Amino acid sequence: MHRSLSAGLAPVVVIRHDGASSHSADDQVAVEEPLEIRIGGETFAITMRTPGNDEELVMGLLLAEGIVSSPDEVGGITHCGKPGESGNVVDVSSAPGVVIDWDPGGALRRATLTTSACGVCGRRSIDDLLARVRPLEDDCRFAAGWVQRSTSQLAPRMHNFAVSGGVHAAALWDARGVDAIVREDVGRHNAVDKVVGRAAFDGGLPARGRALVVSGRASFELVQKAIVAQVPLLVSVSAPSSLAVSAARAANLTLVGFARGERFNVYAGHERISQ
Amino acid sequence: MHRSLSAGLAPVVVIRHDGASSHSADDQVAVEEPLEIRIGGETFAITMRTPGNDEELVMGLLLAEGIVSSPDEVGGITHCGKPGESGNVVDVSSAPGVVIDWDPGGALRRATLTTSACGVCGRRSIDDLLARVRPLEDDCRFAAGWVQRSTSQLAPRMHNFAVSGGVHAAALWDARGVDAIVREDVGRHNAVDKVVGRAAFDGGLPARGRALVVSGRASFELVQKAIVAQVPLLVSVSAPSSLAVSAARAANLTLVGFARGERFNVYAGHERISQ
Repeated sequence: MHRSLSAGLAPVVVIRHDGASSHSADDQVAVEEPLEIRIGGETFAITMRTPGNDEELVMGLLLAEGIVSSPDEVGGITHCGKPGESGNVVDVSSAPGVVIDWDPGGALRRATLTTSACGVCGRRSIDDLLARVRPLEDDCRFAAGWVQRSTSQLAPRMHNFAVSGGVHAAALWDARGVDAIVREDVGRHNAVDKVVGRAAFDGGLPARGRALVVSGRASFELVQKAIVAQVPLLVSVSAPSSLAVSAARAANLTLVGFARGERFNVYAGHERISQ
Repeated sequence: MHRSLSAGLAPVVVIRHDGASSHSADDQVAVEEPLEIRIGGETFAITMRTPGNDEELVMGLLLAEGIVSSPDEVGGITHCGKPGESGNVVDVSSAPGVVIDWDPGGALRRATLTTSACGVCGRRSIDDLLARVRPLEDDCRFAAGWVQRSTSQLAPRMHNFAVSGGVHAAALWDARGVDAIVREDVGRHNAVDKVVGRAAFDGGLPARGRALVVSGRASFELVQKAIVAQVPLLVSVSAPSSLAVSAARAANLTLVGFARGERFNVYAGHERISQ
């Protein structure tokens, strides 16, 4: 039987085993391909991602890593290759009059430039983040029922997950919980970068009054991305890490984990949750 | 109620919501801290991980990335800091007479040195891998029933997952499915690196006749780590990506996904699975 393919999925033939029986079957898997991100022609990073919405991914990543502090600093994000051909290399150019302050070859060591001999630690990671992003001052409130619905409303919009089981999703909901930017990707971080990048292109940053919902666990990096986007609420269907909780508390982000059905845990910023 | 803490877990107070009610509760989360890895004093990488077994993590990562091709090339992996104090910086020294061929500051671009203008792609990632690692020639066989048990036997050994829900696990089983190296970490990749690193320290590489079982999805990077360790079978409880399937087929790795209960899918190398 022929099934039409969504973007981001690839057909594959598998052997299905079930108890003592096995048979061949058509299946679909999430597409994973490398993306090389260049800034002014120099390689900045290579990341594995699901192709599609690459400009959003790059914008979100540049913001999260502090390479740019506003989408206005970016002149263009263009695919290298023939027009209309989806490639795996993008080049970032700066806006007129802007110099993107990035040290090619030194990005990896950026975080440690001011580190003393044995000083890298979680506290330092949080301090570095707060040195470039203000703690959240958003005084919006989210009803407990709204939090409960935010994850159940994500599931039906995870089209590629439904077919492949192999992607993560992120959604940026507006305060009414009506409209959302939803992106899926083989990488948890990429899905969030694409959502934040889309919001940046739409003039939707800082994302005050909104909520970021993610299908996976909440690590420090996801909390960092939420704080940089100034989203006051991060909802995960799974567990947060210790450093995610510490960073959320330090930056006044409301962090919800294990949001499943009518239950959820609040790890930080409980004052934004109303019954 | 006081609960004793395992290594890798941290206590945290949460507000639990359930329907219209909420209450404060003691909980535990997986510890996440940065680790700076230096080679001869120069920063090679900073990765977020659950502290513990750091030497294994570093050895596994150096092997997977092709920085060293054998544990014999490494003279020592030592924590920077006071003796007995668990720190977040480790330094790698080379064995006598060995020069670890690594270009500080250039590691990020290593993969693209031989890349033409727009050439980075999945096929290239696989070719780069096969240029330094031979395809698997292991002619061992695994019974379907053994594959089915391999994941169910992992669950009871995931101690930190049971408590926190926030870690991934990897296990390297021997051919009898009796003894395994099991490691848990906030990072999927780290858990595999620690397992492979342990095997390296124990003289267990190449890991012929063994099976690597992982609690999460199978991405290209996990397949790469399995191939570098020369493990003939990689079993994931979840979905593989397109590039993971392509790489497994190119390197003759047996790749099993969605291994749950009596069911599993074989995406590559089905000849090693016997009924």
